[in-house]
Amino acid sequence: MKIDINVDMGESFGRYTLGDDEALMPFVTSANIATGFHAGDPLVLDRTINWAKQYGVAVGAHIGLPDRQGFGRRQMDISPEELRADILYQLGAMDAFLKIHRMNLQHIKPHGILYRMVGEQEKYIDTFLDTVYEYDPEMRIMLHTGCEALNRAKERGMKIAPEVLIDLGYDENGNWMLERVKKARSPQEVADRALKVAIEGKIDTVDGKLIDVDGCTVCIHGDAPNAVDVAKAVRSTLEANGVEVVNLDGYFAE
Amino acid sequence: MKIDINVDMGESFGRYTLGDDEALMPFVTSANIATGFHAGDPLVLDRTINWAKQYGVAVGAHIGLPDRQGFGRRQMDISPEELRADILYQLGAMDAFLKIHRMNLQHIKPHGILYRMVGEQEKYIDTFLDTVYEYDPEMRIMLHTGCEALNRAKERGMKIAPEVLIDLGYDENGNWMLERVKKARSPQEVADRALKVAIEGKIDTVDGKLIDVDGCTVCIHGDAPNAVDVAKAVRSTLEANGVEVVNLDGYFAE
Amino acid sequence: MKIDINVDMGESFGRYTLGDDEALMPFVTSANIATGFHAGDPLVLDRTINWAKQYGVAVGAHIGLPDRQGFGRRQMDISPEELRADILYQLGAMDAFLKIHRMNLQHIKPHGILYRMVGEQEKYIDTFLDTVYEYDPEMRIMLHTGCEALNRAKERGMKIAPEVLIDLGYDENGNWMLERVKKARSPQEVADRALKVAIEGKIDTVDGKLIDVDGCTVCIHGDAPNAVDVAKAVRSTLEANGVEVVNLDGYFAE
Amino acid sequence: MKIDINVDMGESFGRYTLGDDEALMPFVTSANIATGFHAGDPLVLDRTINWAKQYGVAVGAHIGLPDRQGFGRRQMDISPEELRADILYQLGAMDAFLKIHRMNLQHIKPHGILYRMVGEQEKYIDTFLDTVYEYDPEMRIMLHTGCEALNRAKERGMKIAPEVLIDLGYDENGNWMLERVKKARSPQEVADRALKVAIEGKIDTVDGKLIDVDGCTVCIHGDAPNAVDVAKAVRSTLEANGVEVVNLDGYFAE
Repeated sequence: MKIDINVDMGESFGRYTLGDDEALMPFVTSANIATGFHAGDPLVLDRTINWAKQYGVAVGAHIGLPDRQGFGRRQMDISPEELRADILYQLGAMDAFLKIHRMNLQHIKPHGILYRMVGEQEKYIDTFLDTVYEYDPEMRIMLHTGCEALNRAKERGMKIAPEVLIDLGYDENGNWMLERVKKARSPQEVADRALKVAIEGKIDTVDGKLIDVDGCTVCIHGDAPNAVDVAKAVRSTLEANGVEVVNLDGYFAE
Repeated sequence: MKIDINVDMGESFGRYTLGDDEALMPFVTSANIATGFHAGDPLVLDRTINWAKQYGVAVGAHIGLPDRQGFGRRQMDISPEELRADILYQLGAMDAFLKIHRMNLQHIKPHGILYRMVGEQEKYIDTFLDTVYEYDPEMRIMLHTGCEALNRAKERGMKIAPEVLIDLGYDENGNWMLERVKKARSPQEVADRALKVAIEGKIDTVDGKLIDVDGCTVCIHGDAPNAVDVAKAVRSTLEANGVEVVNLDGYFAE
Repeated sequence: MKIDINVDMGESFGRYTLGDDEALMPFVTSANIATGFHAGDPLVLDRTINWAKQYGVAVGAHIGLPDRQGFGRRQMDISPEELRADILYQLGAMDAFLKIHRMNLQHIKPHGILYRMVGEQEKYIDTFLDTVYEYDPEMRIMLHTGCEALNRAKERGMKIAPEVLIDLGYDENGNWMLERVKKARSPQEVADRALKVAIEGKIDTVDGKLIDVDGCTVCIHGDAPNAVDVAKAVRSTLEANGVEVVNLDGYFAE
Repeated sequence: MKIDINVDMGESFGRYTLGDDEALMPFVTSANIATGFHAGDPLVLDRTINWAKQYGVAVGAHIGLPDRQGFGRRQMDISPEELRADILYQLGAMDAFLKIHRMNLQHIKPHGILYRMVGEQEKYIDTFLDTVYEYDPEMRIMLHTGCEALNRAKERGMKIAPEVLIDLGYDENGNWMLERVKKARSPQEVADRALKVAIEGKIDTVDGKLIDVDGCTVCIHGDAPNAVDVAKAVRSTLEANGVEVVNLDGYFAE
């Protein structure tokens, strides 16, 4: 039994600090690092990748909409051509820092509303997949398990990383829900959910049911106030129960 | 006798058009394309690189300060660490587009006040050279002939491309001058200056003297109203007088 | 018979010039001046208001979405609270320049996609009206004739300025159409349409019919290449046919 | 004996929170609220002014350079014309929110490096004073006690508010010093310094001397981790020792 733990990082910007990235690193196997559009900046990008290298964490490009004020959470009606160019720009910017740190880009994950746009909206799905493939046919795509973009990526033979959002609520159809008033979950509760995903392939819904989910990675939101405690609990619970915590390359290794 | 003709391009931004890049391409051998900080945007970057490929023009990264409103012309007291990160980010962003167009980055040229900052100001020179070397030890650096950064780059064994600004005025010490009221120069006058640089290694000063200049490339400012006519005149005059117009790789080829 | 001629102005930004505002001023009675979010900047705002004062043109706040790269044309799913705050910020910024030029703000007009959002989308209409009223209950609202926001503004007793877009196509239901390939219209054709609006209250549709339109102002798009010629033709044609060209205060004066 | 306590506020931006403004309000008499260039945004501006109103705190415009990434701390070589336009834009934007809250702007205070630029640099001093006067001849200017701009403002008969930075170090000439490694000061130590300013008109230097300072207001930096404790200590210490803590209007009232 294996699973990857991924966390969004590198979201600080200039004077503004968001998340305690260095403290999270020891518990994480994949870092989704902001590429400077919705969050992050060149200095933050460099520093965060440096930490990832120190702690042996694999790096993904956490791409976003060009809307820093809205933190990439406001749907913008960009054209597919703009989407493509924005993705390429961000992938390249990130790769420059990986290059000087002699690291490889493990995966790409869209942030905020872009996660829904390229994962679920017909207008953007194919452009997203085409662009990733055009840039690097071997790049792994991290999106929510079961979303249409992952289905198509799989059909194309592209590498995928279906994820489960273990600190969010689910309805019985497997849809995750942005909670307006975020439900307070204890680190151990999130850890237990992670364990159930890893071992049984199941997650509980807001109605108290258990549904099937198929994920190779579990996501922890790094900007929660108790994110470090959550990450620590998830990691130690998984390992204490015999689940190997590995990055995506490790997960899919023969 | 050989010389390169370089022009700043890709400076449009969203709804705003600056310069007639496609019309300039046939007369140019090296395009300095804005990387999205002081000018340009991802769509413009992609389009301009596409034109460069069509017309067989070599591409350079025209990096700038993060100041779009000031068009990268206002000195900003950034730290050397910020300079390094800003350069890497821009180089990577450009390389993403070159990668999908299967092209190589020929050179780097700083834009606006950054041209002076990294070319002449002690605070930034070594960081600039270190960063370019760190990213790609083979990258060629385009700066003004005789500037301190080029001297040091040469000492380090880095590749350089000293340029002459054939549409600006010079004083007798070889310093180029930003003309507040830009002197109106006919296309033929600029072309004759380019020819003198290529054949005699000399340029006239504002006081009517002739001084030595050592350049492998001549720069035409693409945002002048008559830029296309100037570029056309420069190219045809050079070729009519037996000067081979080649990009930098061609210039330095054995 | 009276009518107002309004044009979007002040859309330049830093090094980027858009439209020939000063040349347009003599033919216009109301200038919609960009307030720095989608276009314009503080220097441009000051300069454009100064021209408006010189030429006796009334000033409106041309407010937009915070998306300079998209020129305020890409729908963004901002919250009503964000809309309110963005409007207030822009109104205030403009009023600072009007204050020092001892001028008054005549009207507010939303730009680009915001024109549709606050004019037609239920999510935003009331917030828009509430905010304008909160800032200044006497401010006149310029929107497309017949749109829902104008209907409600009228019910509330707010001042309105229904406009007709004389250089765009209409369908038979009175809907204006963004033409992908903008139909080339001669200055005289646009002028004739303006005249028909002013005298008969009618405009032709793309299908060749004539429909009723009720407008106190006609809009000319200032970023068309021949905008000055169009404005000149519209003004002279109206005046030659006995239509008094006046700003909105003049139009609604007893 | 009277003194004003001022704190920088409203520096949050979108998803990024900086400072605990509401917790600080009860201890402060003047709030310098960021106007959206170096920090803050329209929603934050509205919310912070609303808190100021609730807690009876006077409001100042904390204007900054257009450099959010650098938090307005990097000197930018803007022109005096740009400075003027940037100031007017920010003053107007803030006044829109004050207008709807039926409040008045008490003072203007420049942020970060702009504090030095308009307070001490010949290139900007007069433009700053001219612009404030042009906008509102009655507006009070908050700058460091003894700086050249305050001297000139006084000569012109403009209203001034000389301040003392009670949580920073001073040299024996009265120059305040940005401490690279910020000296840890206990709330009581800062409070004692505030008291000495208010009662004796003196402050200690980094060399352990006491020098004269003439200030009507003391500044507490709101982004220090213990800012609320510091503000609380300063306020209670002042009041316990018979110093009346009042805003600037109160301080200068007959």
